[in-house]
Amino acid sequence: MAKQISDLKLGILGGGQLGRMLIQEGINYNLTTLVLDPDTDAPCKHLANYFECGSITDFDTVYNFGKKADIITIEIEKVNIEALEQLEKEGKQVFPQSRVIRLIQDKGIQKQFFKENNIPTAPFQLVNTRDDIRSSSFAFPYILKQRKDGYDGKGVMKISSAADIEQSFDAPCLIEEMIDFEKEVAVIVCRNPNGDMKTFPMVEMEFNPEANLVEFLISPSTYPESLQNKAEVIAKNIASSLNITGLLAVEMFVTRDGELLVNELAPRPHNSGHQTIEGNYVSQFNQHLRAIFNLPLGDTRSISNAVMINLLGEKNHNGVAKYQGLEKIMAIDGVYVHLYGKKYTKPFRKMGHITVVDQNRDSAIQKANYVKNTLKVIS
Amino acid sequence: MAKQISDLKLGILGGGQLGRMLIQEGINYNLTTLVLDPDTDAPCKHLANYFECGSITDFDTVYNFGKKADIITIEIEKVNIEALEQLEKEGKQVFPQSRVIRLIQDKGIQKQFFKENNIPTAPFQLVNTRDDIRSSSFAFPYILKQRKDGYDGKGVMKISSAADIEQSFDAPCLIEEMIDFEKEVAVIVCRNPNGDMKTFPMVEMEFNPEANLVEFLISPSTYPESLQNKAEVIAKNIASSLNITGLLAVEMFVTRDGELLVNELAPRPHNSGHQTIEGNYVSQFNQHLRAIFNLPLGDTRSISNAVMINLLGEKNHNGVAKYQGLEKIMAIDGVYVHLYGKKYTKPFRKMGHITVVDQNRDSAIQKANYVKNTLKVIS
Repeated sequence: MAKQISDLKLGILGGGQLGRMLIQEGINYNLTTLVLDPDTDAPCKHLANYFECGSITDFDTVYNFGKKADIITIEIEKVNIEALEQLEKEGKQVFPQSRVIRLIQDKGIQKQFFKENNIPTAPFQLVNTRDDIRSSSFAFPYILKQRKDGYDGKGVMKISSAADIEQSFDAPCLIEEMIDFEKEVAVIVCRNPNGDMKTFPMVEMEFNPEANLVEFLISPSTYPESLQNKAEVIAKNIASSLNITGLLAVEMFVTRDGELLVNELAPRPHNSGHQTIEGNYVSQFNQHLRAIFNLPLGDTRSISNAVMINLLGEKNHNGVAKYQGLEKIMAIDGVYVHLYGKKYTKPFRKMGHITVVDQNRDSAIQKANYVKNTLKVIS
Repeated sequence: MAKQISDLKLGILGGGQLGRMLIQEGINYNLTTLVLDPDTDAPCKHLANYFECGSITDFDTVYNFGKKADIITIEIEKVNIEALEQLEKEGKQVFPQSRVIRLIQDKGIQKQFFKENNIPTAPFQLVNTRDDIRSSSFAFPYILKQRKDGYDGKGVMKISSAADIEQSFDAPCLIEEMIDFEKEVAVIVCRNPNGDMKTFPMVEMEFNPEANLVEFLISPSTYPESLQNKAEVIAKNIASSLNITGLLAVEMFVTRDGELLVNELAPRPHNSGHQTIEGNYVSQFNQHLRAIFNLPLGDTRSISNAVMINLLGEKNHNGVAKYQGLEKIMAIDGVYVHLYGKKYTKPFRKMGHITVVDQNRDSAIQKANYVKNTLKVIS
């Protein structure tokens, strides 16, 4: 019999919550996992069969780590691409493929890819220095994004005046028209090496403006079916243009006039798919494993309305994490707790998430509000 | 703030599949787990924060292991009770309590407990030697069970004639009237230290006569509500008579004339509750954690019809396990794979289970039959 999932070793670059939930799902398939992360206390540490503390951006470290695995995947884009390319040349399977990660790592190349493939996206301009920004003809206000290493709201700022430019990044950036959007939505698509594709139903996101992080996620969306179908087609077009193997999260804006504009891609499990663990027949983590091990993709349909709340560290709390109100929220039916195994909390750190599942959408939202107001991560 | 689940260390006696699924669920609560098991390759080995290879029946080993934990639980009854009693005396929390395990370890004491508490059960007689069996007035055929250490059909035989007695156990046994039952059913109840109790809906079991193991489990039962309610009342009566903290699986016979007779108890996660992972709002593993950490009990209702198939090693196969047909069954919607991380297969070894979830009961059973005929554990 050919080698199967239970015989193969999966190497994961990054040992945070996404890797942790992937491993949690992989237990069902006897998956052997190797994890590389620079943090000695990474959330995956005790769950991986082999944990290595080391840099995921260093060529030698990633290359030598990758040699130990059969299939390599990522839970964060900021990894050493050259090492992954070398591993691919030597016959290792890297999913998503190194060229996909390279493209997505650079928001400039990502935008050019959208343009070349007729993917709707906000107008943009690439700039290399602060001088280029000064001489841009884009009207204020606009969004300035660093091409590389932005994450969770870092590396993004709003430029409202010439004065703002002087405080901005002096690095290769992307100037983007500021979209007056009604809502941010996301579709997660998954593609296996056979080219089979499945999308999870479109979800709606609500942001915490202070932390610039998703605070609330509602699944499925209540936008008209026509818009949802359009979003799914866009996601599938991107996945097939990229020829990606694995998950691809596609974040989009719904503009005030009902158009969809692609904002950003993530070629991995994504925050906008956490509610699939309880809310859908298969989770994004299960689906990613199916794709990268070339197994049939699972049923992405929603079981129920689901609202996901990111559990962020409280302001002014730094230290060993305590979960205030945990007992109270666990008393409510349909409330599912996911803590990420992080010993220390700090303001706005992602410490876990809660999914509320309820057949009634309003009731799910109401419970989610209660959870948000009741559960606090303090020190 | 008082110590909470994420601050406490859970010691688990036994490192098999039940412990493994308990740890898998515990990940959601940042649970720290310590596991003791005599098998160096135990399914929990790589998932526990601390794994100790050692005897769970040896006083010193269990006592010293238990000292390292805050709360101690079991995934098998055959453990050293005296060590648990000593740990309780020294202030450790042991759930289920040592006295409950002591009672259930001995099928003779279990039967007497049923009798004293008016729990319906088959007529029985306790015997100490083969001589006692010879002089019993019970009519053939009857069932002979060893009072201790029986497990998965071991330590149980049918006695049809005086000749059979000569091949029987020469140890403390229980003679039990052979019940002409229609079906074996089970109710899992869970009780927390506050005395709150919740039952999972009654399930029906189908046995593999050759292996004497549950092959198929159907949830929920389609017996009339009145009978199901009666079964739930029996389960709750037992749990409160025992004052147990944690899960209690109550296996019962439904006789041809529609009566319920309690067969056996298991004070831990149980094979008859595996389908709760996908089929119910909370799983038995989640519920057990809630109970032993004195958290509010979760919603036990069924989400859907669910059929659980035990995945047993094929006859004539001994060696490193291969899962033939895995890809085929994963192509079917509603099929969930749970492998137990056992490297080696042998005939009838429990290697995993599959749960089929389907809104239509007949369709779930049909898919389960396909799974049973398609997925084979070979070497």
